[in-house]
Amino acid sequence: MQHFDCDYMEGAHPLILEALVRTNMEKTVGYGVDEYCASAREKILEACGLTQDQGEVHLLIGGTQTNATVIKALLRPYEGVIAATTGHIALHEAGAIESSGHKVLTIPAVDGKLTAASIDEYIKAFRADEAWDHMVWPGMVYISQPTEYGTLYTLAELEAIAEVCRKWEIPLFVDGARLGYALASPTTDVTLKDLARLCDVFYIGGTKCGAMFGEAVVMRKGLVPHFFTIIKQQGALLAKGRMLGIQFDVLFTDDLYINIARHAVELASRLREAFRAKGYEIFAESPTNQVFVALSAEQEAHLRTITTFSEWERTADGRLVVRLATSWATLSEDVDKVIEQL
Amino acid sequence: MQHFDCDYMEGAHPLILEALVRTNMEKTVGYGVDEYCASAREKILEACGLTQDQGEVHLLIGGTQTNATVIKALLRPYEGVIAATTGHIALHEAGAIESSGHKVLTIPAVDGKLTAASIDEYIKAFRADEAWDHMVWPGMVYISQPTEYGTLYTLAELEAIAEVCRKWEIPLFVDGARLGYALASPTTDVTLKDLARLCDVFYIGGTKCGAMFGEAVVMRKGLVPHFFTIIKQQGALLAKGRMLGIQFDVLFTDDLYINIARHAVELASRLREAFRAKGYEIFAESPTNQVFVALSAEQEAHLRTITTFSEWERTADGRLVVRLATSWATLSEDVDKVIEQL
Amino acid sequence: MQHFDCDYMEGAHPLILEALVRTNMEKTVGYGVDEYCASAREKILEACGLTQDQGEVHLLIGGTQTNATVIKALLRPYEGVIAATTGHIALHEAGAIESSGHKVLTIPAVDGKLTAASIDEYIKAFRADEAWDHMVWPGMVYISQPTEYGTLYTLAELEAIAEVCRKWEIPLFVDGARLGYALASPTTDVTLKDLARLCDVFYIGGTKCGAMFGEAVVMRKGLVPHFFTIIKQQGALLAKGRMLGIQFDVLFTDDLYINIARHAVELASRLREAFRAKGYEIFAESPTNQVFVALSAEQEAHLRTITTFSEWERTADGRLVVRLATSWATLSEDVDKVIEQL
Amino acid sequence: MQHFDCDYMEGAHPLILEALVRTNMEKTVGYGVDEYCASAREKILEACGLTQDQGEVHLLIGGTQTNATVIKALLRPYEGVIAATTGHIALHEAGAIESSGHKVLTIPAVDGKLTAASIDEYIKAFRADEAWDHMVWPGMVYISQPTEYGTLYTLAELEAIAEVCRKWEIPLFVDGARLGYALASPTTDVTLKDLARLCDVFYIGGTKCGAMFGEAVVMRKGLVPHFFTIIKQQGALLAKGRMLGIQFDVLFTDDLYINIARHAVELASRLREAFRAKGYEIFAESPTNQVFVALSAEQEAHLRTITTFSEWERTADGRLVVRLATSWATLSEDVDKVIEQL
Repeated sequence: MQHFDCDYMEGAHPLILEALVRTNMEKTVGYGVDEYCASAREKILEACGLTQDQGEVHLLIGGTQTNATVIKALLRPYEGVIAATTGHIALHEAGAIESSGHKVLTIPAVDGKLTAASIDEYIKAFRADEAWDHMVWPGMVYISQPTEYGTLYTLAELEAIAEVCRKWEIPLFVDGARLGYALASPTTDVTLKDLARLCDVFYIGGTKCGAMFGEAVVMRKGLVPHFFTIIKQQGALLAKGRMLGIQFDVLFTDDLYINIARHAVELASRLREAFRAKGYEIFAESPTNQVFVALSAEQEAHLRTITTFSEWERTADGRLVVRLATSWATLSEDVDKVIEQL
Repeated sequence: MQHFDCDYMEGAHPLILEALVRTNMEKTVGYGVDEYCASAREKILEACGLTQDQGEVHLLIGGTQTNATVIKALLRPYEGVIAATTGHIALHEAGAIESSGHKVLTIPAVDGKLTAASIDEYIKAFRADEAWDHMVWPGMVYISQPTEYGTLYTLAELEAIAEVCRKWEIPLFVDGARLGYALASPTTDVTLKDLARLCDVFYIGGTKCGAMFGEAVVMRKGLVPHFFTIIKQQGALLAKGRMLGIQFDVLFTDDLYINIARHAVELASRLREAFRAKGYEIFAESPTNQVFVALSAEQEAHLRTITTFSEWERTADGRLVVRLATSWATLSEDVDKVIEQL
Repeated sequence: MQHFDCDYMEGAHPLILEALVRTNMEKTVGYGVDEYCASAREKILEACGLTQDQGEVHLLIGGTQTNATVIKALLRPYEGVIAATTGHIALHEAGAIESSGHKVLTIPAVDGKLTAASIDEYIKAFRADEAWDHMVWPGMVYISQPTEYGTLYTLAELEAIAEVCRKWEIPLFVDGARLGYALASPTTDVTLKDLARLCDVFYIGGTKCGAMFGEAVVMRKGLVPHFFTIIKQQGALLAKGRMLGIQFDVLFTDDLYINIARHAVELASRLREAFRAKGYEIFAESPTNQVFVALSAEQEAHLRTITTFSEWERTADGRLVVRLATSWATLSEDVDKVIEQL
Repeated sequence: MQHFDCDYMEGAHPLILEALVRTNMEKTVGYGVDEYCASAREKILEACGLTQDQGEVHLLIGGTQTNATVIKALLRPYEGVIAATTGHIALHEAGAIESSGHKVLTIPAVDGKLTAASIDEYIKAFRADEAWDHMVWPGMVYISQPTEYGTLYTLAELEAIAEVCRKWEIPLFVDGARLGYALASPTTDVTLKDLARLCDVFYIGGTKCGAMFGEAVVMRKGLVPHFFTIIKQQGALLAKGRMLGIQFDVLFTDDLYINIARHAVELASRLREAFRAKGYEIFAESPTNQVFVALSAEQEAHLRTITTFSEWERTADGRLVVRLATSWATLSEDVDKVIEQL
């Protein structure tokens, strides 16, 4: 039996673990103001093509936490956040955004993606509505790269969305919980520097991309005053903050972050093509580390004898859509074992 | 030029005003524990067919406030409220529900109505979802009677919805901001006693049905501990609370509440039929005090010369849907003037 | 038996009631954009010595609601509001401020008052604290005029507090739920224009000063974006908004607001001196419409045979402190009756 | 230069690190439903003397997060949490409790401790207050063991507090961020089983007691419905949940948790006595791993040449109170070096 449930089934990448072991008995101050965090921040900014005057980096622990903290920090009471109906914040964060007082304003998505046009139309319709001031003001845009269906925004799409955001003077926030797999996808034309240039704030996911935990928020310098205190208030400030610094320092040394993601994407691609070759229906054309398959009852029964996976949703005709995910830790031979038995 | 913008264009019904004038110099204690409030509560309970042991009545000021206060009082942090996509709390309360930390879980509505089946399916799908505990628990159901499109739930529909709520052990809350117009509709088979029997909590709207302001919340005895304090916390406690008591006392004397609503419903019906007769497209078949009409550009231009109204939405083909509302104060001759010029 | 429990025992001042009756059948649009509200806003701005470019006026319904709405609108998530330990928001608003996510940062008060020095020291200590960024940032100052003990800030005191606020770049908010009684006090040197000049935002209480309900918020133009929507979200937007406009329009015609407050202050003064003459201990030297008396058990028993009142607190030695309040509606002869029996 | 700033300067205890390394490449499901978490839960329940029917264990990441999550889960909107004025939630959590809508109701503490009598008096006074229903209902009690000043509740004190809580029917919550140092103190008569017996909910701090991060919440079975979803909503759910399980599994094997805490307490004791012997004023008599010293300007200057420490507060006469903390990782020789130079 194989296990392709998700990309957080193993611990940390060996190089990260090694660094944690090596530095374990050093003494540093807490809360992320140590030199490891400083080094990680510096390397991340450099990878983003940002100077210290242009960007700032904050290290948080998990994805839902990061989404809730960033969105709470950016919105005023009368504002909500635009997201795809399938966006993680709209569905699978247990109401974390609403818990901080803000509405998630959903727009129907295609393959998990919003378009610049659909955002623009939403805001235009809002502004034209006679009752707009009785409604929640669209105060920012949230998208995910890759999306919840493993799909990717192209550079042109991202630029168009960023332009709509600038036009309406609201910030663009990109959830990069699996960003490594987007950057490492052979089909993408979006670089980290593009994200840094186009977003007001985004994050580089560690938890699902090689770290034990950790998400690195990159934001325009000065975008949010006292973000440190907001992080503390959200319970998102790690006392032994250097654990985050060490992990991201390793991930951003010698391109480790991209390299390990590339491995996962290649294995996922192999898996996806094998499913397709065997006549399975690929549900969303994801060029990243996730493989979505719509299963007949027979296929479902068969697949359950081969590997574990995640249940995603039901198609209109009642078939189960499942997701298989690879990671930096997936073995090529485990992929082979699944393929052989399909 | 006539004015049919909404049903809160005038002050209070003359009998209410008279009572306010008559009692003005009396001294009572504040915050609704005076004898006028006691009397109003008693009359409302009686009209609902409830004893003091079965029900309790709380007098609040406005509709959005009442929705926010009741929903906040009923939900736990992990819970959200099911509502129609067109529900007032979902669209036109400026995020008041989210502001108190809770998600509005929307289900597509037909003519503003939810069905028992759609609610049941929603909850069944939620419970069957592998990721349910990462999602917002459906903690109550919110519907409006009449709906935001002036349509009405039949007794059979309400009973079915109440049964679904009992089955899933979640409370049913009915927004009755315009309840008078529902109760007075010739087509309805739902009485106040039915509502009291089927709902865990609902309110009897005063603001839009004859009062200067005020909404009377009727709830199962003991449903919410310390609801008084929650009302205070929401800023919904009127210092001169007797103003609410006096108004509802008058409204629930000699069936005033129903009688004045009936007047409005009859005038709206006359107006609706006149529109229809003149070839206008009636947009939602509302048997209450609201008339919705989908206008061609030409019709819109013409109607603007006759009366003011509210803009509602756009049809798929771009026509403006408008709403005209009558009230207890609408004059028959004003309706005639509109009809003559159509 | 007389009744001096509070200053909201009667209805509305007769001139207000008359205006409500006179305008009752007029039709206006809702939500406070009618001409009565416009007129009230204009008169209030003029009384405050502010042009339309300098100030804006919003009409809300009650005090707790106004405090919660204004404070929520002004603070960012990491900020709290400085208040006296005896401040209304700190004690008697059922946690309304915390309910919107913000901490009330209390400073011990003397006779209900904060001093500029105590605020300055608080903020200085906060900024000097090594752990400041783990603590709630003092984001605004809240004081009441008159205070919860009926005491008054002098102009010099207010100017000093405003200067401290400017120094630390945080807004000053004055709760004027009973502002009329402050402005009408023979001992005050603070005018409405002073308040408008020194505060970023304050409100002119109607509920306790002659209106049926209503609080007029005066703020620096543009201080809060989309305050209308925040009001709606807080459930503080009256559908029949003109009811607020009419009341404040009357109150700000021919100095009614001050004149009726002066009547109350004079009667309270007579009552206070009578208590003192009879050997009762005056608890706080309030020059406004409230009389605080610390009662021995014997005095308490006696006073209970004469009039109703509010229980306030216990002195260190266990005596009950009670409050008697006069209002625009208090009759001189009722004061006499109490005095005679003391 | 030595470093005694806090007890989270190093990484994880070597045995924990070893377990993380050993298990690193295993595949487990996420979110804490793996076997390591199950094993940790079992061991913790056993150490607490609780069966699976009596208690439940939830593994969260950090202290502020745990406090906010537990308190939010326990309180209803009208309720607040009683805490010492010096309590961590009252001062140093950036308003996390208020951020979830609840007031922290503070009672003056002596040496960081509340007494059963002071809690009882607070609640009695609240219930006797004429205006109680305009105030925040005391809905639970929060204390810390050890307190923020390293002091300890005796068993008798804890039992008395628990009895007051039972009397008023509100839960007792103990913040055990540094619980190991309390349990390992030679002066304590409170065991883990006592805490489990007397509290409704408490947590066993990992972050400051040997783990890389992690806090184990122990609560009465069924105390909070859907606590998992609330944890998710708060952003407190670790995707790679087993990291928590492994750490607590190791800590609760062979009494590691107590043993390493004992080491720290012994070193702190040595340090404390050395300060005292040299004529320094010990500020709070903490029998745990924290040493508080009130320093003259001269002493402060001298100490700064020997070691780093945390600034705590100022005494009434302006002297700086500092804190030195030991941990499982503190070397005996480092303590000696400080002592030699005092």
